[in-house]
Parts: sequence; structure tokens; C-alpha cells
Amino acid sequence: MNFTPSTSRTSETLYLSAPAVVELVRRQGLRACLQGIADNIQADFLRWADFDKTARVASHSRQGVIELMPIADEVTYSFKYVNGHPGNTRLGLSTVMAFGVLADVTTGMPLLLSELTLTTALRTAAMSAVAARALARPGSRSMALIGNGAQSEFQALAFHHLLGITELRLFDTDGEATRKLLANLSDLPVTVRVCTSVAEAVRGADIVTTVTADKAKATIITPNMVEPGMHINAVGGDCPGKTELHPDVLRGAAVFVEYAPQTRVEGDIQQMPSDFAVTEVWEVLSQRQAGRASATQVTVFDSVGFALEDFSALRYMRDTALALGMGERMALIPALDDPKDLFSLLRQPTLASRVQHLPEMAEA
Amino acid sequence: MNFTPSTSRTSETLYLSAPAVVELVRRQGLRACLQGIADNIQADFLRWADFDKTARVASHSRQGVIELMPIADEVTYSFKYVNGHPGNTRLGLSTVMAFGVLADVTTGMPLLLSELTLTTALRTAAMSAVAARALARPGSRSMALIGNGAQSEFQALAFHHLLGITELRLFDTDGEATRKLLANLSDLPVTVRVCTSVAEAVRGADIVTTVTADKAKATIITPNMVEPGMHINAVGGDCPGKTELHPDVLRGAAVFVEYAPQTRVEGDIQQMPSDFAVTEVWEVLSQRQAGRASATQVTVFDSVGFALEDFSALRYMRDTALALGMGERMALIPALDDPKDLFSLLRQPTLASRVQHLPEMAEA
Repeated sequence: MNFTPSTSRTSETLYLSAPAVVELVRRQGLRACLQGIADNIQADFLRWADFDKTARVASHSRQGVIELMPIADEVTYSFKYVNGHPGNTRLGLSTVMAFGVLADVTTGMPLLLSELTLTTALRTAAMSAVAARALARPGSRSMALIGNGAQSEFQALAFHHLLGITELRLFDTDGEATRKLLANLSDLPVTVRVCTSVAEAVRGADIVTTVTADKAKATIITPNMVEPGMHINAVGGDCPGKTELHPDVLRGAAVFVEYAPQTRVEGDIQQMPSDFAVTEVWEVLSQRQAGRASATQVTVFDSVGFALEDFSALRYMRDTALALGMGERMALIPALDDPKDLFSLLRQPTLASRVQHLPEMAEA
Repeated sequence: MNFTPSTSRTSETLYLSAPAVVELVRRQGLRACLQGIADNIQADFLRWADFDKTARVASHSRQGVIELMPIADEVTYSFKYVNGHPGNTRLGLSTVMAFGVLADVTTGMPLLLSELTLTTALRTAAMSAVAARALARPGSRSMALIGNGAQSEFQALAFHHLLGITELRLFDTDGEATRKLLANLSDLPVTVRVCTSVAEAVRGADIVTTVTADKAKATIITPNMVEPGMHINAVGGDCPGKTELHPDVLRGAAVFVEYAPQTRVEGDIQQMPSDFAVTEVWEVLSQRQAGRASATQVTVFDSVGFALEDFSALRYMRDTALALGMGERMALIPALDDPKDLFSLLRQPTLASRVQHLPEMAEA
């Protein structure tokens, strides 16, 4: 790789590979990362109006979807590339893979390229915790965790570390997933109960987190399961045709969303009329709108994942990497002595000598 | 960098840095690269209906614009990140910087990350040549080149190598730009005449290429300059508010575009009513529509740059890099033994050991 660690050339981009982010999280600690990303999300949501927001740009195929999620304020631009391919696990690939970029709005220079597969799991859990801190009953201690797949550990940890959840009730139709979750969280000081049905897991829980992966319209939570005062953190219903909540659960609750134009297409509220009342979470965080109206009201966070959360997470990764002296410099943009003379690249032999060759490399 | 040259892990992405693409072009030869990209563009335009096309997604700021340009067929997805910041050269940065990705539609896996700053200049010139081969009078030998900035050498070379242009008439309001162009093309076996006005450069030319960089609406070519049978390759007018041709030049010509919905917003035809008749170049290439109607008709290619050309260029870069054994493997996506167990990344110490630390790295 053509990095030049001793200089800070403006044409170089900081690169955080997937292993680098794994190492960053290990060194910083998962709790600190969740907390740091949650702080950034909270701070960025409080300046909601500063952002140029667009719904994501999706390219659908038979096997799945590839999306671009751009957002910008006056200083920083970011986008995320992310896919969703339910059949990938059969091929040994993740269902969701992602990477993203931070760029300088004033010049267009890409400042950071980072993995976002692991980071997306962290930011989704941090966002859920930020919403629940504003919406769940104070003193919530128990959480049902319905769906024990790739995202579930991160939800459990965020709710333990950021909300003080000390009791987890687990359910998944796949016992293997629950066993994996139990093994991954064996060191966490929480009481864990493995349940044999959704209803059993939900009964008496302060918070219900659904993070199931069914592609088809599903009804994981039905009205008879819902108890007064519950907060439902609905994470799994996040694209057209993918839902988790019975419509009557939504009708009987106060529903909160990230960015309404996107959630009406992708969230559980895709089942509801286009004028179904929802409140955007930033409005609650900035105290423009009430959150929970009473201790008995049911609240729903209809989470789909919004570009601003990736912006917040990328900022955290960049700042932490720079503080820890991690990451590499990549020459994604050519360095030009005279930027009006692009052709000079093909004249200067000095540049060519910096390229590494890997003749043994095979086609993917 | 965390590359593993001896394996072909599916979670690895081929990386072509800016210096690597410079080296690739040097080794392959600029003529062969222009020819190869033109061949790919021609082939991809002939299967126009196979592509899921969208207009680019732009984020505008006071200083410029950052855009994402996605496109996909049933096998391959691509997007380009590209900015346009007219003030950048004062900061030592290029006005236009770009990079792009090829991904597998069936899994969402990013297969290639490549610089596209230099590559965009190549593909823009190759596209101009593909259009001119279909539209200019056969036997065209002389070309006026109005605007001698960063793109001009590539236009000159593409028209020399792919169309047989042997006479160039140069004009730029900035004499320094013309001197740079002359120096860069000193080895090219063409007759070059430096002109003192646009009108002088255009007079008697078979082809007129405008590649000026004025942000404001400009009128580089006026009706009195246009001669029967000319082909006008209008490259510089490529975003809202940026034009080069007098509306009467467009009214008096047969106008050809890449992708009409995008060109009506960004091209010189932004000056015309929304029903102004244009023909898409793919229709001419596939012989669904006539190109030039007679030897005296004036033809205009209102070039703005379309995502499909980047798709074609990225394919060329990937195929050539693999053939030459160039490029590196990057770990942008985490490698998981069990893709349902994302959390395992934070358990396995083996991954951490693969990360390089650069503690001496400074903030950009």
C-alpha cells in the first residue's frame, strides 16, 4: 500500500480496514465505543436542521439490495455503501456488508475510508439505546431480545451499558443462534433467561427488542403480548416487505422514527396509512416534542437505520483512530504538483516507483 | 495494509490506488487504455436496456458539489464518488477528484475499489471519441480544442488515436494552459496551431471540442462560428448553470446525449425546453436511430458524463490489473468463519495480530 506515514499530504485518505476497526474496538473497549457513538448520535441529532438529508438510493436485484446513504452538513459529507442479501450466509458471507467515507464539503476530498460492517452493528445498537433512554420508562431493567442473530449481542451490550439493563430474556426460532449469543455474552453481569416462545420472553419485560431477520412480512409481536408501559425497540423491520409488529401494536402505541420519509417506506409503519402519526426522535431529544406521555403508554422505536447515524459513527472512528495513532494513509486521489495538469501524472516517473506489484495475486 | 496476496478470499477487495492506475496506464500504454475503455463503453452502450439507471445523487454546497453515480446490470453494480469544486486549484487540489467501486450484484460484495480521477479523464475522452466515431463526418482530420485545461490532453489523444485527427487548433483564455498542453503533447505526430480566438480555432475544423471550466453560463460557441458538417463535442457544460453553446447552435443542430433525463438537467440542453428533441447515443450505436443525416448537418454531442461510462472504465481497470498482476487486496469487509456470528470478530485474537500500527501518523 502506498502510504507515507511521516507526511500529512492533503491528497491522502485515512484508511481503516475491518481488522483495524476490530483492533480499535478492542483497544478502546466495546463499552467506550458504544458510549462514544451514542454521544455523537445524540449531538448530531440535536443539530438535525444542519444536515442535507436524502432517502437512501437503492439498487434492487433478485438476490438482495445495494444501497448508498449520503448525508452532509456544511463541513463534512459522508456516505455509506451497504448491501442486504439474505442468502449470503449460505455462501459464507455476511447478510449485511458495509463501508463508508467521510469527505471535506469545502473541497470534496475524501478524508476517511472505513469498514462499516462491524461499525453498523455498533451504531445501530447505540441508536437503539439513545432512543430508549429518551422513551423507555426510567428504571427499566429487563429486556426481551427476540432474534439472537448477528446484531443481538450489540443490542444486549448497548442496553446493558447505556441503560442499565440487567435481565435478558432470549428467544429465537433457531436454538443455535441463542447458544451463540449465550456464549458471546457469558462474561456479562446480567441475568439471562432462555425462553421457548416470544410471548414468554416478552411477558413482564420493560423493553422488547426485536431484531429478527425474516425477509417476508412477519408478525413477531402481537397486541396480546404488549403490556402497559413497555418500550418496543423494533430493529428488524427495515425494508419494504420486512416487518415485525402487528399493525394494532403500532395503533396502540406512540411511534417514534429516525427520518419519517424513509421510515414510511422501510419501517414497520409501511403497514400504516401515510398520515399515521409518528414523532422523529430528534424532536424528542431536543425537547420540541414529548416522548413518553405516561408510565403506562406503550412506546415504539421503529428503527430502520439512517445515514446520520453512520455519519456520527464514522466521526467517532476517525477521531478515535487519530487519537490512538491507528489506520493507514491511502493514495486514493492522485497527488499533483499542479492540479491543472492532470496529464503530468503520466509524465512523472517518480510516482510509478512508489507502486507495489503483487504478481502472484489471483482473480477473486 | 492487510493484504494476503497468496489467497483469493471472497471477503477481500481488489484495490487500485492512484499511483497503481498511473503505473497501469504506463505499462499498458495510453492508446491501448483509451481503446480498451472505448471498446467497453461501446459494448455496454449496446446493451443499454440491461442497466438499472438513475440520475446522479448530488449534495451541493457553497464551494461545490459531491455526487454519487450508481448503476448496475444483473451481474455487476458500480458507483462513482466524484466532486466538483472550482476553487480547489488554489488549494493545490484538483477541481474534480473521484474514486469508484465494482460490486457483485448477487452478494453485494465490493470486488474493486479504484481511483477514478485519472480514469475519469480517460473515460470522458473515450466516450467523446465513441460518440464522434458515430456522428462526425467520416474522414474528419482537424479538431479545434477550446479549453486547454486538465482534460484537454486526453481529448486530443483520444481523437488522434481513435478517430485519426492529425490537426489540432488550440485556444484558451489562459496562455499558460495552452503552453502546458503543447508541452504534454510534444511527441504526438499532429500539426498544432495555437489560435488567438475561439473563432480562429473553430474556422474550418471538422470537429470542435469545448472543454472549458467556466462555472457561470458561458457562450463559447456562437452560431456564426458553426460551419456545415461540423461535429461539436461539448464536454465542459456538465452541471446546472454551466453551459458552453449558444442556444441557437443547439437549435440548428442534431443533438445527441448520453442519458436524456440527466442531460436535460446538467447539459447544454438545460437552456432548451424540456421537449427539445435529442437522441441518446446508444440508439445510434445500436442503429435504432440515425446519427448524422447528411454531410452538411451539424451534430452536437452534449456530453455530461454518465455512470455507465464509469462502469465500463472500472471493468477495464479491473480486467487489466488482473491481467498484469497489479493491485493489492484490501480487507474492507471482515472475514468471518460464521457469518451469522459478527460478534466473533471481537473474540478472535488472530485478527488483531494482522493489523499494522502507524503511531507516527499525523492528522490530515
